[in-house]
Amino acid sequence: MSEPYTLVLLRHGNSDWNQKNLFTGWVDVRLSDQGVAEAKRAGDLLVEAGIEADVLYTSVLTRAIQTANLALEVADRLWIPVKRSWRLNERHYGALQGKDKAQTLAEYGQEQFMTWRRSFDVPPPPIDADDQYSQANDPRYAGIDGDIPATECLKDVIARMLPYWESDITVDLAAGRTVLVTAHGNSLRALVKHLDGISDDEISELNIPTGIPLVYKLDADFRPIEPGQYLDPEAAAAGAAAVAAQGKK
Amino acid sequence: MSEPYTLVLLRHGNSDWNQKNLFTGWVDVRLSDQGVAEAKRAGDLLVEAGIEADVLYTSVLTRAIQTANLALEVADRLWIPVKRSWRLNERHYGALQGKDKAQTLAEYGQEQFMTWRRSFDVPPPPIDADDQYSQANDPRYAGIDGDIPATECLKDVIARMLPYWESDITVDLAAGRTVLVTAHGNSLRALVKHLDGISDDEISELNIPTGIPLVYKLDADFRPIEPGQYLDPEAAAAGAAAVAAQGKK
Repeated sequence: MSEPYTLVLLRHGNSDWNQKNLFTGWVDVRLSDQGVAEAKRAGDLLVEAGIEADVLYTSVLTRAIQTANLALEVADRLWIPVKRSWRLNERHYGALQGKDKAQTLAEYGQEQFMTWRRSFDVPPPPIDADDQYSQANDPRYAGIDGDIPATECLKDVIARMLPYWESDITVDLAAGRTVLVTAHGNSLRALVKHLDGISDDEISELNIPTGIPLVYKLDADFRPIEPGQYLDPEAAAAGAAAVAAQGKK
Repeated sequence: MSEPYTLVLLRHGNSDWNQKNLFTGWVDVRLSDQGVAEAKRAGDLLVEAGIEADVLYTSVLTRAIQTANLALEVADRLWIPVKRSWRLNERHYGALQGKDKAQTLAEYGQEQFMTWRRSFDVPPPPIDADDQYSQANDPRYAGIDGDIPATECLKDVIARMLPYWESDITVDLAAGRTVLVTAHGNSLRALVKHLDGISDDEISELNIPTGIPLVYKLDADFRPIEPGQYLDPEAAAAGAAAVAAQGKK
């Protein structure tokens, strides 16, 4: 039970709304067929690498949970303990939730669009509580202390994700357990920013591909002893480029 | 958050080994295609009945976890908290694990066969630790205090299941949460025996069908205020008859 500790990050596969090119955020869409295939492939990659997750962390969004369930079924480890938290959710996209990305780009222009997508501390406009894509009345968030966010920038995601990393995930790591975190583009960017000490400016350039496990070996202070490794580096590079190009079609 | 509390029991659907007519016990087989369909139908039945599970309990066996995941995906409640325990596992079938039921019946005769299947307190012979169907070295049981069982009768199942009912499941019920327990023929028989006060002799006649939610309304002492109700009583009766006939083909 000594370091290096093993942490595996996995971004959910392609969703129905990824395919439709809509801003998703906290809207609870499901994996597309392509996303299902990506999740199973992630399970294969874990098996091939001989990585056996001892505990699973997921957001409370279905697409991340589906991804974990499919990957762990392939890896024959559906039986491991599971912990879910809204703190691992995707960034809340505010009033952009449900909007078409290309249409938003055309309507507001490249600068505003990229600010909303990649600014560290400028959130999109908040969503109305009675908007069809608001989660103000979703029972899964009934237990959140304080208000459910109506929009978030990456800085906000870090502020609600990091306390959970420290209170829960690092405790499992410290016990020697291999931890699998199945989450989202922005909650994982928040975690990678923390792990790799990426600056507020540089984080905008980081894109995490879907469906490819990213493996960190961590020291006793939960700091990487070497750069995180994607289990399929070639596919990861192609996937990151595809994420960067999103909305530009 | 007051009583009656709602408890839903769900036996996993048909597995690969059910189809092959083999004794399964703790061997970690998967759902058959029929079992997958049964699990999804269980999700439909929950939706139709308007029952919204707030927390899920499963065994650590894949077929029960698959059943829960499929049913909850249909019911749009994959996000609820999950707790797993070996204490909800199927009865350990000892040296019979992996054996053909019809062949065992032919070899040992009806009396011995039914004793092993339905006796309250006579377990089958224990399985050797080095048998291919033993779980002596399965990492999912590394945390069990004391030895992993090498065989169990129903009395043994009750002895390891009831403490978990009392320590964990009733706590969620008392908090007003609707609890879904997705488990196995014998761990659910053990729980129903307790809930309904069925005698040691009479429990042999109780058969729980696969894939059909059984709903209990419980009072403040976690006792049924009326008999448990299957969400599809007709299919449940047919399913129970099919279970009773198992091994006789």
